[in-house]
Amino acid sequence: MSLSELSHEELSTLHSELKAAYDQLVAKGLKLDLTRGKPASAQVELSNELLSLPGEDDFIDVTGADCRNYGGLQGLLEIRQIFAPLLNVPLEQLVAGDNASLAIMHDTLVFSLLKGTADSDAPWFGGPVKFICPVPGYDRHFALCEQYGIEMLPVPLGDHGPDLDQVRELVANDPAIKGIWVVPTYANPTGVVYTEEATLALVSMPTAAADFRIFWDNAYAVHHLTDVENPALDVLGMAEAAGNPNRVFIFASTSKITFAGAGVSFFASSPANVAWYLKQLSKRTIGPDKINHLRHARLLGSPDGVRAQMRKHREIIAPKFEEVTSILTARLGPYEAATWTSPDGGYFISLDVADGTATRVVDLAKQAGIAMTGAGAAFPYGKDPRDRNIRIAPTYPSPDDVAAAIDGLATCVLLAAVEKTLGS
Amino acid sequence: MSLSELSHEELSTLHSELKAAYDQLVAKGLKLDLTRGKPASAQVELSNELLSLPGEDDFIDVTGADCRNYGGLQGLLEIRQIFAPLLNVPLEQLVAGDNASLAIMHDTLVFSLLKGTADSDAPWFGGPVKFICPVPGYDRHFALCEQYGIEMLPVPLGDHGPDLDQVRELVANDPAIKGIWVVPTYANPTGVVYTEEATLALVSMPTAAADFRIFWDNAYAVHHLTDVENPALDVLGMAEAAGNPNRVFIFASTSKITFAGAGVSFFASSPANVAWYLKQLSKRTIGPDKINHLRHARLLGSPDGVRAQMRKHREIIAPKFEEVTSILTARLGPYEAATWTSPDGGYFISLDVADGTATRVVDLAKQAGIAMTGAGAAFPYGKDPRDRNIRIAPTYPSPDDVAAAIDGLATCVLLAAVEKTLGS
Repeated sequence: MSLSELSHEELSTLHSELKAAYDQLVAKGLKLDLTRGKPASAQVELSNELLSLPGEDDFIDVTGADCRNYGGLQGLLEIRQIFAPLLNVPLEQLVAGDNASLAIMHDTLVFSLLKGTADSDAPWFGGPVKFICPVPGYDRHFALCEQYGIEMLPVPLGDHGPDLDQVRELVANDPAIKGIWVVPTYANPTGVVYTEEATLALVSMPTAAADFRIFWDNAYAVHHLTDVENPALDVLGMAEAAGNPNRVFIFASTSKITFAGAGVSFFASSPANVAWYLKQLSKRTIGPDKINHLRHARLLGSPDGVRAQMRKHREIIAPKFEEVTSILTARLGPYEAATWTSPDGGYFISLDVADGTATRVVDLAKQAGIAMTGAGAAFPYGKDPRDRNIRIAPTYPSPDDVAAAIDGLATCVLLAAVEKTLGS
Repeated sequence: MSLSELSHEELSTLHSELKAAYDQLVAKGLKLDLTRGKPASAQVELSNELLSLPGEDDFIDVTGADCRNYGGLQGLLEIRQIFAPLLNVPLEQLVAGDNASLAIMHDTLVFSLLKGTADSDAPWFGGPVKFICPVPGYDRHFALCEQYGIEMLPVPLGDHGPDLDQVRELVANDPAIKGIWVVPTYANPTGVVYTEEATLALVSMPTAAADFRIFWDNAYAVHHLTDVENPALDVLGMAEAAGNPNRVFIFASTSKITFAGAGVSFFASSPANVAWYLKQLSKRTIGPDKINHLRHARLLGSPDGVRAQMRKHREIIAPKFEEVTSILTARLGPYEAATWTSPDGGYFISLDVADGTATRVVDLAKQAGIAMTGAGAAFPYGKDPRDRNIRIAPTYPSPDDVAAAIDGLATCVLLAAVEKTLGS
């Protein structure tokens, strides 16, 4: 029953059925949004205690500092103590910041562009700068590169990490290649977890640039959807052992642990890189919001407190992921019309539809009131060379809305695939 | 009794007396710190309600948005409504950000360096960039310039603004001059308030650079110490009327209204500049901490709520300022050994000691356990050409400590002056 095995007549019949189904879908006048990886209301509600924490008599930290006043550039000890083990980094190499890890990524990039790095005073800006972008990947990473004129070199992301031969060859020969974007745990959007082997290759490979950096965005470090609960690798230790201690910038945040947009962000790296970062940062700010650090420390309490909180998140969102894969399996499976990921964590499912039809699918869905992330969004410059990838973000809508949206999406996927098979 | 009128013998006697007084001072083993403009504990305590606000059922803003989730790049309407009238800017041209206005200054500078401005796509970085720095001024402004290789051109700051003839001449002829630092209300450290006349000159003067910017840091807009309560000028309206609508970047924050380091920062400018800023900012972050905006809106309530809060601050710190000026008057006045400012607001008193002795005074004070901001800190590159300026920050210590510190400082000022007179 694979589409490729159907006769022209069978395809025509199927097309008529799908067209009728699509017209019914449009007639429903849905208004559903699966565009962004936003936590659901039930998820942010898990942290409602934050709204009255730390409490009126609670403003002195464990070192005796008054959190209501200036200072403390590296962030509160209490919150760093909770997250250092979860991110598998030494406490003294962890910095707690404001509400957005994207902002720390931006700033490390900007500092490197204008001031150079701990390994070289030469500013990146002015000369050609290139980043390797495993694809599909995170659109906001790519937007940062585009913003600052950093050329993006896409490399396919496999099941355990990027195509290492391609990466090694690129970085060995081009000193303009200064970085690679990595979402090591439950990658956005495929859910891939970088293996220790792939990680070792990345931290130890020879690079033509002396200050090559891995932008290690561990956004979903503790965001498990199954019992597997992949732990964070000791990537800083691995890089140091490989003789490249300054290669890795680690980023993380509580945006999808507590409140999205009102959480705490983190940066971790080698001692030299942390000193470099704090030195640049000290010109920008006197310190982060320590009260918010204290508030979060009081809510979460310990690494186990975070783990417990994440299991509550899982209870809310795992059924939505199951809904997506079960509908896709039922609707698309028989036709072998697409493939999709079944991640063990994170916020996305990556759907690969028939080559050359992703734009059409997203467009059909939009006309039916189902907003999907734009086709190509997971690729540099928004250009998916095979026009086949669609990112599904199932966390925010209700389970019923997720089901309705994915069922409608499946109709669009099939219709576009049949259109294409008939037309070719 | 002015030092200059004393005979050599009288000076020698005075020197012996002062030396003895200084030795006694050192023997006391004081440990006092007047280095930074930090609010006192009693001041941050005024906002302790923030520690349990907004409260567990309070997270929806006036537009219906859930403040616990992503979005809202321009900041919460509620908090912008409170501060737009206080800063005398249109609501829609006001952006509320995270916890530090210094960070917004940094970012507007960095965006201009890397991306150009709303008036020119040409990045500032690469070519020569110069800023006019009225002196004495704010050391963190100057540190930002130094960090990014921006050449600083000092211009004397008078009682109503900078030397306008010098400023006009400089900006008219040098297209590399891209900006000027201004603290318009209760300037750091002299307390000067820019007059409407000076402001009009700055917004209307012809500039060789098409994208010249006034970095208008209204850090002390509502920080009055007397009944004068100078209001914020409509500098955006004045710039627009003068045909230079994009000339002014306004910065402000609640750091010295609520909690230092856990407050809300603000940016205001022309519609074109705000669009430019938000466009750049959107690559850096999805939005500011809206819960902190809501928390502040709940605490402060209205512009009058802010005014009432500021009068409580005044009750706490005005006596410390009076202590400083009364001790300086009693101890230094008779000798005409120094001049100092008596500001109507802000956080500092600027002390000008005998030429060539500021470094010696700060050093003497340090040896006596009285930490003062380094001599020259209020000048670009830390270089006070007359080595006479010392910034006094009296807000943080207790009134008794302020008195002890200033009395000790006066001894150091006199000793250094007499040493110099004797030695010359």
